[in-house]
Amino acid sequence: MRWIRYTFDQKTHYGLLDGEQIQQVEGNPFDVYEKTDIFRSFKEVKLEIPVVPRTFYCAGLNYSEHVIESAKKQGIDPVLPTKADIGYRANNALIAHLEHVVIPKDATEKIHYEGELVVVIGKKAKHLTLDNALSCVLGYTIGNDVSERNWQRSDRTFWRSKNTDTFKPMGPWIDTNFTPNQATTTVKVNGVASTVYKTNSMIFDVPTFLVEITKYLTLWPGDVMWMGTDGSSPNLVSGDVVDIEISGLGHLTNTFVKET
Amino acid sequence: MRWIRYTFDQKTHYGLLDGEQIQQVEGNPFDVYEKTDIFRSFKEVKLEIPVVPRTFYCAGLNYSEHVIESAKKQGIDPVLPTKADIGYRANNALIAHLEHVVIPKDATEKIHYEGELVVVIGKKAKHLTLDNALSCVLGYTIGNDVSERNWQRSDRTFWRSKNTDTFKPMGPWIDTNFTPNQATTTVKVNGVASTVYKTNSMIFDVPTFLVEITKYLTLWPGDVMWMGTDGSSPNLVSGDVVDIEISGLGHLTNTFVKET
Repeated sequence: MRWIRYTFDQKTHYGLLDGEQIQQVEGNPFDVYEKTDIFRSFKEVKLEIPVVPRTFYCAGLNYSEHVIESAKKQGIDPVLPTKADIGYRANNALIAHLEHVVIPKDATEKIHYEGELVVVIGKKAKHLTLDNALSCVLGYTIGNDVSERNWQRSDRTFWRSKNTDTFKPMGPWIDTNFTPNQATTTVKVNGVASTVYKTNSMIFDVPTFLVEITKYLTLWPGDVMWMGTDGSSPNLVSGDVVDIEISGLGHLTNTFVKET
Repeated sequence: MRWIRYTFDQKTHYGLLDGEQIQQVEGNPFDVYEKTDIFRSFKEVKLEIPVVPRTFYCAGLNYSEHVIESAKKQGIDPVLPTKADIGYRANNALIAHLEHVVIPKDATEKIHYEGELVVVIGKKAKHLTLDNALSCVLGYTIGNDVSERNWQRSDRTFWRSKNTDTFKPMGPWIDTNFTPNQATTTVKVNGVASTVYKTNSMIFDVPTFLVEITKYLTLWPGDVMWMGTDGSSPNLVSGDVVDIEISGLGHLTNTFVKET
């Protein structure tokens, strides 16, 4: 089942996607909902981010090649995380599939993508175990953790480097049947493959993160957890189109433009 | 004007506080609202956090004595921030005035309070200037940025040290007339003053933070910005009652209990 969130005639709804057709729903996937008799074509609606997160978690360092590559670029020894320490991103930065990432005027040339699997929480949960961890998951979507690497190094926190408006594309939908086990993440820039990795080759997988964080934190319906990225990105410039495909899940596509 | 958020008869409302009396409101202070003819006594309602933040910003290091004290405890030289770099906290951790802070079973003895001024955003804003920065502020409330200092040092991020469930008391209300200029923040443990500082002796004041972050980020109604703390805290133990008073604004009081 694929949940999409969209605007038609200035109203935003949840709907269920079947091929090119959307069945409008009253309510939302995190609470009660009812299917309606209203159908829209996928092409006639404006896609929105599939959820406005209650809390926006992000795993940061969670694939070994990404840690090694970024250490190499800084001329330091790579240090792989030994614990599943989660971080945070901010809602102001979220944009939908096909919306534009706006590079601020004073940003440096080091604008990078990070293609990520996103876990969408559907049920309140605490003290999960490895056996029941996935029971709180509604489904999965795709995220692009856009970063300004020089700000990431110069600032004390990630507020600007990671959370500038438009720096967090997320979408296109929430797929409730997807499992990451056999999936491949492919990031293309202007149609040419730039990063390819096994989606599930994480240092700490989804159940491990869910178990760790729910030792102390309650997860709520509508929370999202971005699972980190592998590999590295070239410097992106105005006009670049970045397409992140997770096989079996979908494509998240956004054009980068310079602020005028 | 003081906005409070409360539950009566299993329903949560916004209301306006006048002395001990609450006038119930339809709607909320961030959108449209209308006063009703329903009045409650302050004593008969359950107080809730005054807002569920859209984004939960936190200034972290923003008072010089706090930076110096915490560096001293770690045996390192203090480094005062040279830029207004904002951080984030998480909604799962929020609790209201008079609710209990629960210290996890496996926490160390280093459980500390941080009494903070909280700015509540009322209007969407970007590219603010020092002259118009405060125009987006609805009012102010009080926060306690409870921290487990050993986790703060051992973990890669602040997820557990700062965002364990119940670690973020906030309240009791939003005061729209308060200004921090002449205010004093007094933190008492079991009735004895433990930390006293001038609320406005920040390294970067409220307008400076608003101008800096809105260079890159859009602020939204319902966002909150915790402004950091001065001084340091003793180790808190089960049964301790922590009361944070900001003069002219109110008291935020919470009892600390050990998880059983």
